[in-house]
Amino acid sequence: MTTVAFIGLGNMGGPMAANLIKAGMTVTVFDLNPAAVQTLTAQGALSAKTACGAAASADVVISMLPAGKHVQSLYLGSEQGTGLLDVVSQNTLLIDCSTIDAATAQLVGQQAAVKGISFMDAPVSGGTAGAAAGTLTFICGGSQDAYSQAQTVLKVMGANIFHAGDVGAGQIAKICNNMLLSVLMVGTSESLQLGIDNGLDPKVLSDIMKVSSGGNWTLEKYNPCPDVMENVPSSNQYQGGFMVDLMVKDLGLSQQTAMASNSSTPMGALARSLYVNHARQGHGKLDFSSIFEQFANQNKK
Amino acid sequence: MTTVAFIGLGNMGGPMAANLIKAGMTVTVFDLNPAAVQTLTAQGALSAKTACGAAASADVVISMLPAGKHVQSLYLGSEQGTGLLDVVSQNTLLIDCSTIDAATAQLVGQQAAVKGISFMDAPVSGGTAGAAAGTLTFICGGSQDAYSQAQTVLKVMGANIFHAGDVGAGQIAKICNNMLLSVLMVGTSESLQLGIDNGLDPKVLSDIMKVSSGGNWTLEKYNPCPDVMENVPSSNQYQGGFMVDLMVKDLGLSQQTAMASNSSTPMGALARSLYVNHARQGHGKLDFSSIFEQFANQNKK
Amino acid sequence: MTTVAFIGLGNMGGPMAANLIKAGMTVTVFDLNPAAVQTLTAQGALSAKTACGAAASADVVISMLPAGKHVQSLYLGSEQGTGLLDVVSQNTLLIDCSTIDAATAQLVGQQAAVKGISFMDAPVSGGTAGAAAGTLTFICGGSQDAYSQAQTVLKVMGANIFHAGDVGAGQIAKICNNMLLSVLMVGTSESLQLGIDNGLDPKVLSDIMKVSSGGNWTLEKYNPCPDVMENVPSSNQYQGGFMVDLMVKDLGLSQQTAMASNSSTPMGALARSLYVNHARQGHGKLDFSSIFEQFANQNKK
Amino acid sequence: MTTVAFIGLGNMGGPMAANLIKAGMTVTVFDLNPAAVQTLTAQGALSAKTACGAAASADVVISMLPAGKHVQSLYLGSEQGTGLLDVVSQNTLLIDCSTIDAATAQLVGQQAAVKGISFMDAPVSGGTAGAAAGTLTFICGGSQDAYSQAQTVLKVMGANIFHAGDVGAGQIAKICNNMLLSVLMVGTSESLQLGIDNGLDPKVLSDIMKVSSGGNWTLEKYNPCPDVMENVPSSNQYQGGFMVDLMVKDLGLSQQTAMASNSSTPMGALARSLYVNHARQGHGKLDFSSIFEQFANQNKK
Repeated sequence: MTTVAFIGLGNMGGPMAANLIKAGMTVTVFDLNPAAVQTLTAQGALSAKTACGAAASADVVISMLPAGKHVQSLYLGSEQGTGLLDVVSQNTLLIDCSTIDAATAQLVGQQAAVKGISFMDAPVSGGTAGAAAGTLTFICGGSQDAYSQAQTVLKVMGANIFHAGDVGAGQIAKICNNMLLSVLMVGTSESLQLGIDNGLDPKVLSDIMKVSSGGNWTLEKYNPCPDVMENVPSSNQYQGGFMVDLMVKDLGLSQQTAMASNSSTPMGALARSLYVNHARQGHGKLDFSSIFEQFANQNKK
Repeated sequence: MTTVAFIGLGNMGGPMAANLIKAGMTVTVFDLNPAAVQTLTAQGALSAKTACGAAASADVVISMLPAGKHVQSLYLGSEQGTGLLDVVSQNTLLIDCSTIDAATAQLVGQQAAVKGISFMDAPVSGGTAGAAAGTLTFICGGSQDAYSQAQTVLKVMGANIFHAGDVGAGQIAKICNNMLLSVLMVGTSESLQLGIDNGLDPKVLSDIMKVSSGGNWTLEKYNPCPDVMENVPSSNQYQGGFMVDLMVKDLGLSQQTAMASNSSTPMGALARSLYVNHARQGHGKLDFSSIFEQFANQNKK
Repeated sequence: MTTVAFIGLGNMGGPMAANLIKAGMTVTVFDLNPAAVQTLTAQGALSAKTACGAAASADVVISMLPAGKHVQSLYLGSEQGTGLLDVVSQNTLLIDCSTIDAATAQLVGQQAAVKGISFMDAPVSGGTAGAAAGTLTFICGGSQDAYSQAQTVLKVMGANIFHAGDVGAGQIAKICNNMLLSVLMVGTSESLQLGIDNGLDPKVLSDIMKVSSGGNWTLEKYNPCPDVMENVPSSNQYQGGFMVDLMVKDLGLSQQTAMASNSSTPMGALARSLYVNHARQGHGKLDFSSIFEQFANQNKK
Repeated sequence: MTTVAFIGLGNMGGPMAANLIKAGMTVTVFDLNPAAVQTLTAQGALSAKTACGAAASADVVISMLPAGKHVQSLYLGSEQGTGLLDVVSQNTLLIDCSTIDAATAQLVGQQAAVKGISFMDAPVSGGTAGAAAGTLTFICGGSQDAYSQAQTVLKVMGANIFHAGDVGAGQIAKICNNMLLSVLMVGTSESLQLGIDNGLDPKVLSDIMKVSSGGNWTLEKYNPCPDVMENVPSSNQYQGGFMVDLMVKDLGLSQQTAMASNSSTPMGALARSLYVNHARQGHGKLDFSSIFEQFANQNKK
């Protein structure tokens, strides 16, 4: 029976850990927030006083943290404490599900390799709804062995599991995808508004473009124009979904990556600027499809 | 039996008219180029000395011309001659399949309406291959009656037929779609190159994004990165397909439309600039997926 | 003594005509708005019932109209009436000071040339303040003769008079300049805000960049950040100055020109999108330096 | 008499150190490259075996290094050796003239402050010509005391010395300026090309815009269009001047800064993409005004 240590019990990590418990695994959790820990222990988790305590005897360690600096100090240690790499055995598989910069993932992976420990980055998409339902998408970076070994736990939490390449490749693939998603969303929004401004019904235009060469995920699943689709944030005042602030974070990571590799991403960079303007105008907590409102004519309302 | 007048027998118009003949219709053709006319008469078309001559006794007139000015002078007349609106009867259905500015389509539509004649704009997509195979997409603007009446001929030439709205709406919907397509193509290209620059296999990354939230028509049907897909221009030195120069034309129409309606299309405008730069560097005759090369690192070759 | 016909007495034309009267010229005015005519006749102008009536006996005709279509119908005529080209003599110099598309200016110029009449486009900058003070800038397109002959009247209304080339060149040069101005304004705004976001005093940063390689007209004369300079719109809630809506118009002309010549203007196109978004959010009547607010962090206010 | 330690004797550092020697100061130099050291000792410099050795007894330490990581390890130490902060006295003034990220400058400044040592960032502009002539521009970040104290050495090497704010502010101000410069250069290039494409003489258009509201440093000092100005890189096949690769570096720093402060810089981000594309097409070693060629019509050549 697999024993799992789960570090980081936020909006995503909490329900992910809960699904492992439901699947019958022995899960020891750690989070700085006692309430988050209690929620999980109430569902059957064990708890530990430190991340190292949780990890020491686990077969698999899964971490879900906000940013690269947290991941680095968790695995490599810091002034505040020992890192996991100093306490886990070579039989432990380390899986970081955080969305962070690839450079930090690669640094942790290299240090782990020095000690003969398997590390994999496996950032997710699918949001809190996917975390609760166990239908997340995992994009993995690591060795073929690590990837195979991780299936047991990932399949419990997710519906789609991809192997993008070596350590760090999961992060790269995710930010490539999310950068492209932002471009699809902005491009679809301005195209729909151009149609509306010229008298077209956005529903009709969406139906045409969806099955034509303009077809893309946002038209299929997540139309940004209010009242074209049901059960999407645009038809619910842009509540729920994937927040503008999180898209800004991911676009920042994509641009950091583009600078490190000296890559040119004019569309991604423009999307970031538009999303930052949008957030700065007070819309950071809305769903990211609300970028549609940047193109609407407020004067006509 | 439907009698059709077909005006404009270029790379698209020629095979479209041929399909009507094959379907058993009586087709009278006109083009300024005698060789183009001969090609069609050899397949069974009748020919006329003028466009008006071709149209005078037709049930349906179909035109396929390069630009708005040609369409305007065909239907409204010019110093060179009478316009079709002065010679056809109220029972004739006029269908312009050219890709032109919506304003010209609307002008012709209004003048036709004054005379009680039905006019519809029905720009196509699908390229010369689709024209030959009879699998074009038609995006129609006109009355419900005109749209219904046009089915007989459009179904012979196309596989997908959409009704976008009133006269002009076909042109609007088409340039919205093609503007969005250009954004998908550029965004996909820069995302794939960002992955490549960071060590990812473009085939693996494409496979991941195709079924994730970055999914779009270009990943599905027309991957711009060489050797990811077979039978697409990118795997054939960007030969064939939809030329950069034609995308530049359509993006110019989209920007004209955006200016007339005071709309903001930052992604579409940026895509146009990048495509114009690409064309100006000598790549206007390549397929439009060759924009991928703008992001590749020539220094590494 | 020069006799002048002045057609179009709006916010710009009115004070321009007034300066000609003050300089002792005989000025016959025409405008569709009787109140505008009265304001000028009260200052000594003669009036005419039609534009042709005003122009018939003038040495110089000056027009100042909103858009190309008005200029075209004034000079070439329309269903509403005869054009000036049919009533003026070959000794009359025609000067159009409107900011319009170069194509219309060239069309009028060609028709005038056919009749042996001199026509010059001479769009202005300097705003209503410059019009009142007689310190406008004129950018002229026309023959060397026309340019020389026009000095008498232009010097009364302006302080800087440029000869950009043949007919139409005045319009081209003006929209090149105003497109560049929009880029300077947006670029300066985002650079200042980047400094502010990182703790710099915008006044100190402006002082440094103004005398460094970032130096430009907006830093010198028209700083967009509130309270850096006195007596500019940014220090007066962006009131007065050059309206966002007018910048949107000029950027539209620049993009029309770019499309006609197949030119790539990525910065100008982006500036237009940002200005359109700004106008659509309800800021069209503010001074164009208010684009600065698109970059400010509203969440911090 | 001031004694100076100078660390980093590259294309910029070498001539800067030479000017201090010429001014009669005692200068001890260090560089990993023995040839660079020899060039300076031949001009009267002393040399030291390590950076710490050079700095130990100096009144002022000046460093001129390629990137943030070098600056960090010089001052804070690394696995390879002790940092300067561990060997200099509280009477020593540390001045880093490298162009690096502000975060590293601030980190070094904070560590220095903990030890009671004055540190100032003072990135330069003016290129190798300015370094040789002693006419550089210094943009300083540090305390008022440090700024005053630094005048003695900075005046020997530079003509313009600015105080932008606290430690790090020099770097921020410089990258704000250089980002704005890139926008001026691209915007001016596309505006000139738009004029050329429409028949204007670029010299005439430059003369008009230079004294109009499009006026900026590039039109005044550094016109990007060949043969408009003498003695600028554009009239010398874009040789010399400020390399595209260096502009790409500075634009990368500006974007890193924008991400750290969550700022939106659409023009700067677009300029970076265009410069990266330009570099990737093999033009990285040309002067940065060569971006003009991205807009020229190669098909017409």
